[in-house]
Amino acid sequence: MRTLRLTLQYDGTRYAGWQVQPGLATVQGKIEEALARILGGPVGIVGSGRTDAGVHARGQVASLRTESAFPAETLRRAANALLPWDIRVLEADEAPVGFDARARARSKEYRYQLWTGDIVPPFLYPFVGAAPFRLDAERFREGAREILGRHDFSAFASTGSTASEPLRAVSLSELDIEGDLWVYRIAANGFLYKMVRSITGTLVEVARGRWEPERIAAILASRNRAEAGPALPAKGLFLQSVDY
Amino acid sequence: MRTLRLTLQYDGTRYAGWQVQPGLATVQGKIEEALARILGGPVGIVGSGRTDAGVHARGQVASLRTESAFPAETLRRAANALLPWDIRVLEADEAPVGFDARARARSKEYRYQLWTGDIVPPFLYPFVGAAPFRLDAERFREGAREILGRHDFSAFASTGSTASEPLRAVSLSELDIEGDLWVYRIAANGFLYKMVRSITGTLVEVARGRWEPERIAAILASRNRAEAGPALPAKGLFLQSVDY
Repeated sequence: MRTLRLTLQYDGTRYAGWQVQPGLATVQGKIEEALARILGGPVGIVGSGRTDAGVHARGQVASLRTESAFPAETLRRAANALLPWDIRVLEADEAPVGFDARARARSKEYRYQLWTGDIVPPFLYPFVGAAPFRLDAERFREGAREILGRHDFSAFASTGSTASEPLRAVSLSELDIEGDLWVYRIAANGFLYKMVRSITGTLVEVARGRWEPERIAAILASRNRAEAGPALPAKGLFLQSVDY
Repeated sequence: MRTLRLTLQYDGTRYAGWQVQPGLATVQGKIEEALARILGGPVGIVGSGRTDAGVHARGQVASLRTESAFPAETLRRAANALLPWDIRVLEADEAPVGFDARARARSKEYRYQLWTGDIVPPFLYPFVGAAPFRLDAERFREGAREILGRHDFSAFASTGSTASEPLRAVSLSELDIEGDLWVYRIAANGFLYKMVRSITGTLVEVARGRWEPERIAAILASRNRAEAGPALPAKGLFLQSVDY
């Protein structure tokens, strides 16, 4: 038995998320289909985590256990030839036997792209959430700092979360600004359901001046989803990278 | 009678080009439909030129003659509210009476985006032509300089061209490089059918080393389409701007 580590990029627009679901086009499903054709038998891969319908990835990681001796680089090229254009295998590497992309993930970085201008450029529309408001970057950053550290993130978890345990440690919570494009970067040892989209939606409320940055601490303490801001659309969210 | 000048941006992926065609979704058609709803009657607009199926625009210009006193800025906002996300009206300005976006265009700039890396990122796929070859930028630039000036561009015009007169004056022919993304910029007083895509395809042959840069002059002199390289896919092409 041999274990491979795949680094993946995808535009999530056309997919019902990462995880295989009967009758729906999913990213995991498309990749398993392509690999099965190459390796000549059913294939199961394990992703670092499930991305929701419409969420994109620049550096998703998946593991694959196989008996096949098929060379990793040839596998990568063959998979890209078979996969639809919106899913790419960037790298395929030998991993230590037993490597499990989900169990071994230590930290993940997500990015939420906000378009703060009046008109969303057509070329960016599928990859941003729109926030056409007068936003104060300093207020956004002040709020973002409140997110750092180990907290119970229940207030930012949509119902439907299956996490039994709502404590997460956030190690990065920063805003980059490139003209009208605001990119919120957040890294943590794990994320609850819709957590990044809810946090970003709340920080937009803060940046708009509707709430004070200090309110973030009160929202966290409340552990009440109703206290936080709205979850922003999936299309602005990117799984950026996974650390092991 | 009043004349408006519209500056437009669109992702051409889903459209059968600029020009209205019965039964097909076109950019001009979508805009005329939206304007007709706002102004309460049939509307005809004139574009600076037709873009082909799948070609994008960052700064297409169209003119609109109307009896309506509807404020230009309100029209712009209303049009963006009605139009699909992949077509945006960036600006709507009062123009001199009789302004005609096609007749008055003095010069247009197009850009062709080439992805020269091994793997086309999903986020760029709809907006680039793929050239995954070992390319020599200096050879590309040498060839591009041969394009400058006034020439008979018949060799770079696909059949189907309706131009009665194949002389065009090219005032800009340059390559910008940003990592694996090569952007070829060309400006001229007019373009023949598929001219930019054929020129770019030919410059790729030169940059790959299959032809010498000097061959460009011979291709121009031949006025024979069969002498030039292939026309690259529409999806890498952008109408960047129009000068009046």
